[in-house]
Amino acid sequence: MKNSLDKIRKKIDIIDKEIFYLFSERFNLVKNISDIKSKLGLLSFDKDRESFILNKIINDNTNISKNFIEDILNRVFFESYILENNTYDKIIYNTNSKINITIIGGDGNMGILFKDKFIKSGYIVKSINSSNWDINLEFIINSNVIIISVPISKFISIIDKLNNLNLSKNIIIVDISSIKHFTIKSILNIHEGPVLGLHPMFSNNIDNFSNQIMICCNGRLSDSYKWILDQFKLWGLILHTIDSIEHDKYMLYIQYLRYFIFLSYGLFLIRNNININEMINISPSFNYIFLNLFIYFFNQDSKIYIEIINYSKKNDNNIINSFLDNINLIKLYIKNNKIDEIFNEIKKWINLNIDKKYINKSSNIIKNSIILK
Amino acid sequence: MKNSLDKIRKKIDIIDKEIFYLFSERFNLVKNISDIKSKLGLLSFDKDRESFILNKIINDNTNISKNFIEDILNRVFFESYILENNTYDKIIYNTNSKINITIIGGDGNMGILFKDKFIKSGYIVKSINSSNWDINLEFIINSNVIIISVPISKFISIIDKLNNLNLSKNIIIVDISSIKHFTIKSILNIHEGPVLGLHPMFSNNIDNFSNQIMICCNGRLSDSYKWILDQFKLWGLILHTIDSIEHDKYMLYIQYLRYFIFLSYGLFLIRNNININEMINISPSFNYIFLNLFIYFFNQDSKIYIEIINYSKKNDNNIINSFLDNINLIKLYIKNNKIDEIFNEIKKWINLNIDKKYINKSSNIIKNSIILK
Repeated sequence: MKNSLDKIRKKIDIIDKEIFYLFSERFNLVKNISDIKSKLGLLSFDKDRESFILNKIINDNTNISKNFIEDILNRVFFESYILENNTYDKIIYNTNSKINITIIGGDGNMGILFKDKFIKSGYIVKSINSSNWDINLEFIINSNVIIISVPISKFISIIDKLNNLNLSKNIIIVDISSIKHFTIKSILNIHEGPVLGLHPMFSNNIDNFSNQIMICCNGRLSDSYKWILDQFKLWGLILHTIDSIEHDKYMLYIQYLRYFIFLSYGLFLIRNNININEMINISPSFNYIFLNLFIYFFNQDSKIYIEIINYSKKNDNNIINSFLDNINLIKLYIKNNKIDEIFNEIKKWINLNIDKKYINKSSNIIKNSIILK
Repeated sequence: MKNSLDKIRKKIDIIDKEIFYLFSERFNLVKNISDIKSKLGLLSFDKDRESFILNKIINDNTNISKNFIEDILNRVFFESYILENNTYDKIIYNTNSKINITIIGGDGNMGILFKDKFIKSGYIVKSINSSNWDINLEFIINSNVIIISVPISKFISIIDKLNNLNLSKNIIIVDISSIKHFTIKSILNIHEGPVLGLHPMFSNNIDNFSNQIMICCNGRLSDSYKWILDQFKLWGLILHTIDSIEHDKYMLYIQYLRYFIFLSYGLFLIRNNININEMINISPSFNYIFLNLFIYFFNQDSKIYIEIINYSKKNDNNIINSFLDNINLIKLYIKNNKIDEIFNEIKKWINLNIDKKYINKSSNIIKNSIILK
């Protein structure tokens, strides 16, 4: 019987070899498609085509689980985005004339990412900072687009510098800092032309822009900068437009609150002498993912969080106090053996408000997480 | 050019068809292997064989990214576990004689899961509760194993009932509740025979036991119940032995603290009228996973958490207060613009203490999470 086990395993090895040979053939074809799309100026990914492939394979393979097919194909599509990335960089969306882009603070992480991408796509880009400002004055003034990518603490001084240049009304000013209402308002005050606020929802270590989220807050004359957003879409970014006040509010709940929670959690683990490896070993799937978020979080650059915290402190001191009030309330409920009431309140709120697809999705993520270990 | 795009796409469709045909062939072979292993009494999965396959394919396919190969193969292995599950249930590990198992509280979620599994593997199992206790007295007394699977609130009365039966010293008593030190001690007090404490680190909605974690706390005479642990391993469970006091401590940090954090977070979102769908839409990968944990959490049964909280309240009142102290400390650091100090303290602690593999893993999980969306 041991013998037949070996025989079957050899058959499996041959099949595996064949499968990955086919994958590599597939990726070669994807590169061809990418070249053609690039020449035709088509988007790097096509959600309709992906759905078509997915449904066809699910229908044709009823003997394989739907979840398995979905997971494999999603991973294949994702790999295709990465491969398409290099060819897609070469698109010059606006072919009529060369476009000059100034990136102020272009030597920072996010600035470098955008500079590379714009240059690969055929734009003329210069990184400007305070030290080389004066020698680049002519380039700045003749730019079609000025992108501001500086820490909030330096933002006002940059605005003053730009104000002194009496910029042409045709220049598009784009800000990509993590706060939007204050920055957009400041630019609108000193500039009569088009203004666009962006917040990239990704860090600079991403492999490619495909499927990454870019939040857009309109400032002024959105028709003038539509081509920039189209270029982003060509790079594969998913744009999400939101009002700048709403943006800042959500960032409090998304970034600030999470920062606060992870800091509290981490400090608590340290103070209680937890062996974090043992904790990971005995963690069920759910907690394994939570701990992975925790580990990842503290290996990120904390600058953006600090920025949002410091900015929020001036404008809204209540978020931490409100969070603390809730915690004290929960403590009281625990004391009175009524903690289930809060659990059920939140459960009801989620199930009433959330798009049903997210509930299934979350359950699949946790179930499948066992393969991440 | 559009025409050649269509031609290439047709080629891709043919390749995809072939790939999934090969996957289904592969799964058929896996089922054959599973049958043979079942007859030979071998473990349902073989980590060495998996590493062999993985390394071979990575070496043979240098034109495909290592990450891609790993992700695809992990998903294939995971699917194989699911398929192997049904055949593997049929193993009777101890073939010498029929083994009688009483599951007290066997009608609960976890009780049902274990009952089904033991029956499929050839054991004789009865679910016992207070209402049918007296008519099953003979079965209980003649059991080889008694598994207690009742809420902590009912635990003492069950112990009293068992105490009155004067059980034979040969009977193995196993407790699978979420608290271990108190339960094991209670059983040791009324029973002279083998005692085993278990805490399954999974919920009852799992597809199969493979790679799921089972925490074991030894009570007494571990040689007598070694065969039970071997049966678990055959089912694919990963066993992790820990002292019962340590177990209870870690459960505070893993379950209680997380429960508390998610409750605070949820209540905060409700009180601040957050649109949760909008929040998901604009969330970067990291936060997307966090929100998925949040959604999943509140669609679980809260019973286990309530149990741990109520039990902890009696024994350790300080966890919430200690957590609140940390939060207040962080508030102070934010106020004094020194929040980076805490961030760096935690970062340093993680990087000094954690197994390096987890740092890479966490980064891969976040990066790949884009395909989960």
